[in-house]
Amino acid sequence: MQRILSTELAAHEGEKVTIAGWVHRVRQLKKVAFLIVRDAAGFSQVIMTEAPEQLTEGSVVEVTATVTANEQAPGGVELTGPEIAILSRVDVPLPFELHRPALSAGLPAQLDHAALALRHPARARNLRIAAAATAGFRKALEAQRFIEIQTPKIVESATESGANVFKLDYFGRPGYLAQSPQFYKQLMVGVFERVFEVGPVFRAEPSDTARHLAQYTSLDAEMGFITDHRDVMAALRDTLAGMFEEITTRTGFVPPPVPAEIPAVHFAEALRIAGAPADEPDLAPAHERALGEWALREHGSEFVYVTGYPMRKRPFYTHPSADPRYSNGFDLLFRGLEIVTGGQRLHRYDDYVKALEGESLEPYRGYLDGFRYGMPPHGGWAIGLERLVARLVGAANVREVTAFPRDLQRLAP
Amino acid sequence: MQRILSTELAAHEGEKVTIAGWVHRVRQLKKVAFLIVRDAAGFSQVIMTEAPEQLTEGSVVEVTATVTANEQAPGGVELTGPEIAILSRVDVPLPFELHRPALSAGLPAQLDHAALALRHPARARNLRIAAAATAGFRKALEAQRFIEIQTPKIVESATESGANVFKLDYFGRPGYLAQSPQFYKQLMVGVFERVFEVGPVFRAEPSDTARHLAQYTSLDAEMGFITDHRDVMAALRDTLAGMFEEITTRTGFVPPPVPAEIPAVHFAEALRIAGAPADEPDLAPAHERALGEWALREHGSEFVYVTGYPMRKRPFYTHPSADPRYSNGFDLLFRGLEIVTGGQRLHRYDDYVKALEGESLEPYRGYLDGFRYGMPPHGGWAIGLERLVARLVGAANVREVTAFPRDLQRLAP
Repeated sequence: MQRILSTELAAHEGEKVTIAGWVHRVRQLKKVAFLIVRDAAGFSQVIMTEAPEQLTEGSVVEVTATVTANEQAPGGVELTGPEIAILSRVDVPLPFELHRPALSAGLPAQLDHAALALRHPARARNLRIAAAATAGFRKALEAQRFIEIQTPKIVESATESGANVFKLDYFGRPGYLAQSPQFYKQLMVGVFERVFEVGPVFRAEPSDTARHLAQYTSLDAEMGFITDHRDVMAALRDTLAGMFEEITTRTGFVPPPVPAEIPAVHFAEALRIAGAPADEPDLAPAHERALGEWALREHGSEFVYVTGYPMRKRPFYTHPSADPRYSNGFDLLFRGLEIVTGGQRLHRYDDYVKALEGESLEPYRGYLDGFRYGMPPHGGWAIGLERLVARLVGAANVREVTAFPRDLQRLAP
Repeated sequence: MQRILSTELAAHEGEKVTIAGWVHRVRQLKKVAFLIVRDAAGFSQVIMTEAPEQLTEGSVVEVTATVTANEQAPGGVELTGPEIAILSRVDVPLPFELHRPALSAGLPAQLDHAALALRHPARARNLRIAAAATAGFRKALEAQRFIEIQTPKIVESATESGANVFKLDYFGRPGYLAQSPQFYKQLMVGVFERVFEVGPVFRAEPSDTARHLAQYTSLDAEMGFITDHRDVMAALRDTLAGMFEEITTRTGFVPPPVPAEIPAVHFAEALRIAGAPADEPDLAPAHERALGEWALREHGSEFVYVTGYPMRKRPFYTHPSADPRYSNGFDLLFRGLEIVTGGQRLHRYDDYVKALEGESLEPYRGYLDGFRYGMPPHGGWAIGLERLVARLVGAANVREVTAFPRDLQRLAP
């Protein structure tokens, strides 16, 4: 008999059907037993006089039974007169229960037993939201003529930014894990004008914080023939709106509105708003939180752009603004946390040579080729997927929205 | 003035417009000069009396001119009376020309100058086909209830298969680049029943062949509640059909039909067809080619499944067939090349313990958790994206369809 999903039961009232899933919970009352079966779509309630002992929590079962109306059952139907086959039997007690509204286990225990913890509906929902956000990212960009690319994750030199890199043995010589697809997405602007990539990036972060991972999913885009960074910010705004729409469509979760125009403050002004000294070269987490509160208070926006970051704190490929102390680089804060970094890049070969003055150009050869052979004005951004989702669902730690996080301490499971 | 694309020119006949792109070619005749500008969409022809010297090949230009009908021009229109602004000027001769139908440079030179070579329309087209195939993969799987996942690319032990692995320094202890998302996608069947991932996988292949890369893009899927591997093969068939459809929709390239039922031969029979000794444990490239010819001749199919690979040549998680010498593992050959490996996996904890007999279970702890806490019968596959695209477009070497390939020799650009 063809298996149906829990959500399809109501359409089969009075029929004999087969469902399959995990034993979510068994409750034995005096004269009746309730078996709740969890599948990918939801839950089914199965009624028996007595629950067999083998129906341990977590076991995988196939249930053939009659769909019977019951107002009090979830979805208005339950399964009666069941025949139950056990596909996989769990012989040990689960380290924590999945049937409570929230997992009782702390985050470390959840991460140690990720294979089990991710089955909890709240944890699974976060990953569904991440998948929907990713799908929305692609959809919004493809509507704007962006082409998807795949780029190398092992690179020859650790030249791209100041971030810490992982070193590996590449057939007997040193190689490094890519900190971002930055160089490659820029080169691909020379091919497709507009490109995007969804992929893992690697940071050998020496600090253990609630917002850093050693591997995270970067939603990268890069676009050519721009006037300046403001074209990039507008495209990013539309992309975020598309992502949020897709999240609602696919999961029912409703993110906050993305303003038609996201408020933007210059870095110098941002320091004033955050009450930071005027010579600070970067925003600290507390400053970001203060800016988030300011944007909500003054503009009713959960988002705020900070533009014009000082040149000295941005990577060498950053395009300066009219005032050369500041850049055409920006960050996007969402609910007081930086979730996107972006900006306009240099596009002329000579500007790159100047920006790299004093350094050997040899490690940059394949990259500089792109500019030597003609590149339009361009810019782009990188969204940190886990940070975005954590902020959306109110998770205090990015590890709560990552299936198998990697950090200073954790390399398994 | 808002820039338009080359493909939009015909709709603006008689108007003054602005286009932008790369100087593809300049031809100076006696009384007239032709400038061909390349953009992401195609080509525009610009007419001048004399081409300025600065219009070097590869330079990026913005051209404001009048759209004028000319039957002989590409698309029936050309641009006359141009004002030309140079956005980036190329000061060096290009190492090879982009305006010939095929690149004259050999593959090594193309790979050395990837930033330039990928701009050739034939190379760019292959990457567009790869992007369309990937989009079709996701679309077909989402229509079948699969959820996208992101999994770790750095793992604690090199236990997953016999493939060679890259070793790295993970905060002072050893880590390895994942050879596939195999363990993680299986675990995620416990969460979503059906999952897929598009991502890089890493193989420290010690041999330099036309079909191996040190990093390639793996299109992975895994599904639960199957009867056996045949359910997986059917889902894969539908997915491939969806991918091919999407390629045609997005790029106009027409792949061969995917048969409603892809012919399948058992491994033992495959050896006979290929004229190989009956005790061969695996198929060599020549055998695969012979099977491809056989499938085309006997079934009119460019695809053929080989099922029932010997257990001793498949990884420990492989589910045996009724005859325990053979497995429920399969390969899919396309035009005589293996492009997919898949199969049914073990799903009971005790079966894993038996399969790993004699080995320490400790490195598998997080993986085995999934089976200990209940897993349904399941299976899946991994498509090698570059191999599929190479076979589709008739490229002899997977490097021809990879933007920035990684291999034994090559770690840049």
